[in-house]
Amino acid sequence: MRFVVFLLAMSSLEAQTRPRARDLGVPFDGSPGPLNAITDVKGVEVGHATLISGELSKAARTGVTAVWPRGLGNPEAVFGGWYSLNGNGEMTGTTWLEESGFVESPVMITNTHSVGVVRDAFIAWNVARSKGASGGLNAWGLPIVAETYDGFLNDINAFHVKPEHVAAALESAKGGPVAEGNVGGGTGMTCYGFKGGIGTSSRLVDQYTVGALVQCNCGRRNQLQIAGVPVGREIADNLPFSGKTIAKVVPGIHEDVGSIIIVIATDAPLLPHQLKRLARRAAMGLARTGSTSGNGSGDIFIAFSTANAGAARPKGPVNLAMTPNEEMNPIFNATIEAVEEAIVNAMVGADTMEGLNSHKVFALPHDRLKSVMQQYARTPR
Amino acid sequence: MRFVVFLLAMSSLEAQTRPRARDLGVPFDGSPGPLNAITDVKGVEVGHATLISGELSKAARTGVTAVWPRGLGNPEAVFGGWYSLNGNGEMTGTTWLEESGFVESPVMITNTHSVGVVRDAFIAWNVARSKGASGGLNAWGLPIVAETYDGFLNDINAFHVKPEHVAAALESAKGGPVAEGNVGGGTGMTCYGFKGGIGTSSRLVDQYTVGALVQCNCGRRNQLQIAGVPVGREIADNLPFSGKTIAKVVPGIHEDVGSIIIVIATDAPLLPHQLKRLARRAAMGLARTGSTSGNGSGDIFIAFSTANAGAARPKGPVNLAMTPNEEMNPIFNATIEAVEEAIVNAMVGADTMEGLNSHKVFALPHDRLKSVMQQYARTPR
Amino acid sequence: MRFVVFLLAMSSLEAQTRPRARDLGVPFDGSPGPLNAITDVKGVEVGHATLISGELSKAARTGVTAVWPRGLGNPEAVFGGWYSLNGNGEMTGTTWLEESGFVESPVMITNTHSVGVVRDAFIAWNVARSKGASGGLNAWGLPIVAETYDGFLNDINAFHVKPEHVAAALESAKGGPVAEGNVGGGTGMTCYGFKGGIGTSSRLVDQYTVGALVQCNCGRRNQLQIAGVPVGREIADNLPFSGKTIAKVVPGIHEDVGSIIIVIATDAPLLPHQLKRLARRAAMGLARTGSTSGNGSGDIFIAFSTANAGAARPKGPVNLAMTPNEEMNPIFNATIEAVEEAIVNAMVGADTMEGLNSHKVFALPHDRLKSVMQQYARTPR
Amino acid sequence: MRFVVFLLAMSSLEAQTRPRARDLGVPFDGSPGPLNAITDVKGVEVGHATLISGELSKAARTGVTAVWPRGLGNPEAVFGGWYSLNGNGEMTGTTWLEESGFVESPVMITNTHSVGVVRDAFIAWNVARSKGASGGLNAWGLPIVAETYDGFLNDINAFHVKPEHVAAALESAKGGPVAEGNVGGGTGMTCYGFKGGIGTSSRLVDQYTVGALVQCNCGRRNQLQIAGVPVGREIADNLPFSGKTIAKVVPGIHEDVGSIIIVIATDAPLLPHQLKRLARRAAMGLARTGSTSGNGSGDIFIAFSTANAGAARPKGPVNLAMTPNEEMNPIFNATIEAVEEAIVNAMVGADTMEGLNSHKVFALPHDRLKSVMQQYARTPR
Repeated sequence: MRFVVFLLAMSSLEAQTRPRARDLGVPFDGSPGPLNAITDVKGVEVGHATLISGELSKAARTGVTAVWPRGLGNPEAVFGGWYSLNGNGEMTGTTWLEESGFVESPVMITNTHSVGVVRDAFIAWNVARSKGASGGLNAWGLPIVAETYDGFLNDINAFHVKPEHVAAALESAKGGPVAEGNVGGGTGMTCYGFKGGIGTSSRLVDQYTVGALVQCNCGRRNQLQIAGVPVGREIADNLPFSGKTIAKVVPGIHEDVGSIIIVIATDAPLLPHQLKRLARRAAMGLARTGSTSGNGSGDIFIAFSTANAGAARPKGPVNLAMTPNEEMNPIFNATIEAVEEAIVNAMVGADTMEGLNSHKVFALPHDRLKSVMQQYARTPR
Repeated sequence: MRFVVFLLAMSSLEAQTRPRARDLGVPFDGSPGPLNAITDVKGVEVGHATLISGELSKAARTGVTAVWPRGLGNPEAVFGGWYSLNGNGEMTGTTWLEESGFVESPVMITNTHSVGVVRDAFIAWNVARSKGASGGLNAWGLPIVAETYDGFLNDINAFHVKPEHVAAALESAKGGPVAEGNVGGGTGMTCYGFKGGIGTSSRLVDQYTVGALVQCNCGRRNQLQIAGVPVGREIADNLPFSGKTIAKVVPGIHEDVGSIIIVIATDAPLLPHQLKRLARRAAMGLARTGSTSGNGSGDIFIAFSTANAGAARPKGPVNLAMTPNEEMNPIFNATIEAVEEAIVNAMVGADTMEGLNSHKVFALPHDRLKSVMQQYARTPR
Repeated sequence: MRFVVFLLAMSSLEAQTRPRARDLGVPFDGSPGPLNAITDVKGVEVGHATLISGELSKAARTGVTAVWPRGLGNPEAVFGGWYSLNGNGEMTGTTWLEESGFVESPVMITNTHSVGVVRDAFIAWNVARSKGASGGLNAWGLPIVAETYDGFLNDINAFHVKPEHVAAALESAKGGPVAEGNVGGGTGMTCYGFKGGIGTSSRLVDQYTVGALVQCNCGRRNQLQIAGVPVGREIADNLPFSGKTIAKVVPGIHEDVGSIIIVIATDAPLLPHQLKRLARRAAMGLARTGSTSGNGSGDIFIAFSTANAGAARPKGPVNLAMTPNEEMNPIFNATIEAVEEAIVNAMVGADTMEGLNSHKVFALPHDRLKSVMQQYARTPR
Repeated sequence: MRFVVFLLAMSSLEAQTRPRARDLGVPFDGSPGPLNAITDVKGVEVGHATLISGELSKAARTGVTAVWPRGLGNPEAVFGGWYSLNGNGEMTGTTWLEESGFVESPVMITNTHSVGVVRDAFIAWNVARSKGASGGLNAWGLPIVAETYDGFLNDINAFHVKPEHVAAALESAKGGPVAEGNVGGGTGMTCYGFKGGIGTSSRLVDQYTVGALVQCNCGRRNQLQIAGVPVGREIADNLPFSGKTIAKVVPGIHEDVGSIIIVIATDAPLLPHQLKRLARRAAMGLARTGSTSGNGSGDIFIAFSTANAGAARPKGPVNLAMTPNEEMNPIFNATIEAVEEAIVNAMVGADTMEGLNSHKVFALPHDRLKSVMQQYARTPR
């Protein structure tokens, strides 16, 4: 078996030419940044390792996505907070995040059965990198690794993700446009019964930027709402196909048992308890797309702030800046709007994919989305 | 000053003749119970004490609403759980609820400055009632009392709510239709810049019923969505009026600094940790109506189950029933749908009100709501 | 009935002449501040209103204690955090504290049935005080009020606490020595079967001070440990007396169903999530005195930092200082040590009291405590 | 390099002949079960894989411990709850535990850098085992894996733990005596500056059993208290040795930056929210041994109940039994007592160990412990 790792160089090219949700006339609120991506938040870099191999009986349709809060290899921690809307999933490192207020590693996302290899491989990568140097990302090795389940398209029990893919995701990170859809950890994911995966968006508010990146694998088709329009009911066909017939019980497809990982980044100087407030708002962006966060869903959200460089210094007192709670409303709005748009972008950015045992998940048809929007009188503002 | 207490007898008559949101053609998902009210959950009874007095310089536009999980005066605790989406508000008793898993009192809702009097008055009412008997509602006196802020229409610093109004709310409770809008704790509340207050709805799922009751005082006008339609942008006039001009800075009106208390009831046998899952879903129902849960909002939700009578027995082991997590998805959907509809009902059920210093909040115009729905091709399913 | 309100002026005199736990030779770790009191944290002021009236059939043995983080009437919020070890109790205002990170009122402590009156009376006091001025303590009225149950000595159902007592506690606050034992909210409390109530202590660490104040009403006699010595087993007599016989089922006496409220203050610049860490440590100080935090116990702890004046400004960014997590260990130690000593001080500082229906709770005998310490070879370091 | 895996067969023999803490005259409260081990809770089985290899430059002094709630390979979930006293550590699977109320895998404990391999290896082991069968332990693969840091004695960056060691720990599990000290995940751990590792204890209360198992790697020497006696100050020598001199800054040795994982098992029928109450009490047992839970400590606790077989059935309603809250006090006491004794057993059961770069950690000297107890007049009750 040969793994093909598509690095960001390729994908970001694609990202620039492919239409995104707002290009199809979906009316979203707020003002996106120049890239309409999490990388609009200065310093944030994203890397993908995408694993696609052809043998359908043990297909690899998976990968790893890494979000570096302060750029590739920058060991400086950022303030963070997290929230679990429905915890049928894993995000390692959250206990220390809750305690310390810091995200001390890149946020990495993969498939359910590869959380361990990504976690330990990151530690090993960091140890190797720190040899002879003055220190690694942190002394303790409690990285953030999250997952969603891609077992419909990917042979998840083949444990395709290896340490070298983790390194590839970490080291391919950069700013600029972010590849969406079938890339990185999102490669084999399904969203509202359409092909999903990675999506991103951003908002400008006052002097700040808020960005969202999602690994979207959640929702039933008939739940799907876009800009308030019941798109999932209007495009009720093209359901995932399990080789012989429409998939009925496969997690993440017909039942609301998939998952969504949401990463929120901002340069607004927010403290850990304020970043938890952003993480809770991610649920409201998700709700706008129709999900009811089913029992089987691992809907786990993390938010961090790139402000307050130096906050993690071990000698104090440390000087910080804080956005007053009274000034957070625009940031709340931005979070919700960016999450909503990132989810739709994950679908718009994904191509139809065939995978394990000839299972197939179809892309959201762009032309039909356009026409449903018009049918419901929803046009860009 | 003379307080006029409208008891449920009057209000419920009104509730039967007045149109509700779905009567106006708003398409909601799911199947409501016979009353489309929290009282569809067997045993649940609701009482209101409504305080309206005419002197506009120190107007009373407030009250108390009491939700008895097992009916007026039934001292038996129910399993419960709670969630704070944005905790700029008070709900007493939650620390013990979190610890014990039980709601041991009716859930009472009033204005921000009257939480204390309602709390202590309930204890006193219970003590008086228990004299010579074998015990009151509970030994400890940690009742659930929540609030939203009605200071735009109500002279909140006049502390209008007195112990007798608490008793009136408690003792007027009954099943059947529930008065909505300008009643009980909701009397002086404002919702998305329209007159709001109390609203309710219910859903039937499998063999179970889920009901919601809200005291709705949240949201900015331009956020308002109903069934996915941007109603608040289409009906941008009729904003709250502060006597001379449109109110600009008053909490609960233009800024998203109002609050919403949501009570979820079900007869599905759910354990405390499962009821927290329902409480978290209330946020998703709220999100569907457009709120972004602003910094000033006390968005606090409580869910209880009327099943498992006998669960609070002090001698064990106690026998219980539990709905498997795997069977909770329909209940999640029902929760979200009922909350969404209850919020819209709170507006549809409210009349224009004038209050403190001639401040005025207008009712959501029914005919215009109908026509906006049609404009956006949203018709009942 | 006549209420006698003993204000701090009297009590603090007493506090200066009466021996405290370490005067009796109990070996405690760490270095206390000059007053060995929460008021060693600069700015913190404490006021008590003590209600004692003689009619034993409806005895008042209760009161209110108010801890002002920045001194009497200073409206500026402090960063705070809280923790519930066993939530069979009430502490209002915690939902907003958790959300905002701020304590916006004095921390007030009273009996279980008077939380409401203290809450609303504080709001009214604040409203009255703010008239014509530029603003009160805060706009929203979500004060912190906690309680423990004094119904063995106090006729709790007589609702003795009135708004004027709340004002008296608030307005009598000052720095300096803090009265302990039978004062303020602690007047009628029982601790490990001895007379308890208010206790305080402090520690100096590096350049910072940590102070603790407890309202101690918890524990069974045979659990009591002081400096690791099983004092409760050595002094097994002098149990609470219910008029005819030893009390058997009264909460707070023989069963571990009393409660303890612990307030931690520090001038170390800690953020809200760091203050939660202090609040969790309070449980470890309590554990050292033998409690197992019984089901009936409301063991609720709050911590605040007086540093970062200006943190609550509504316009930002706001400049802050933070103690690094890496420098918190001495502060953790100090918290645990101060809590342990404050609990013992609450007992050492209390006198035998007779109350409702001739119930009687005895003071911890100082001489016997000294001799038990010697018996177990525990002498001051 | 050759890894030697000591399986339980050897270790349990040792466990039966070696003295334990109470054999040395330490007075503990309560009544232990026949084994004074977590395996006194019927069904609980424990397996260890112990890795010790001789090359001191890259020494393996580590391993894996697995606690099966219902016995080796039993796929039936148990109700559980968890608590993080100080979250500088990892315990995977807790997000789903918090949401679902279930522990769906064995609880596995290893070193900090091997959490990932243990996690994924467990999933693979489970997948392999489930092939051709009707299902594995659970469909989702969110196992519980926790850790403490053994980098002083173990070359943690050599990643010694491999999938086969995970299988060995899982498959060697059985009931009966549990090996303590330098075994399994505890092999290389240090506790209050003495050699620590795995320890266990149990209590009988009413008709129920409560058991504790700890992987103890926490605490500074001068903090150590045993049965209230300041043992750490009396035995201040024999500090960990780093080859040339006494270790000064190594985590887990002199600074309170080690960690402790505590597993509580009971057959009392407790619901998830009640098991969280037990987990919180583990902190009080830890506090009794002197720890102040330093910033660097990962003090994470999990509790489960083996009662309610069948609770995880996916079709409902499911019948359950619950212990009333009012009957939990003896279980709280038992939890605290068992944790305290398990920690002391971890030290008493461990031998002096030399490891990485000739670092050396000394065993707690049994005779000196005995004599310190006598010096402080603490004798068995």
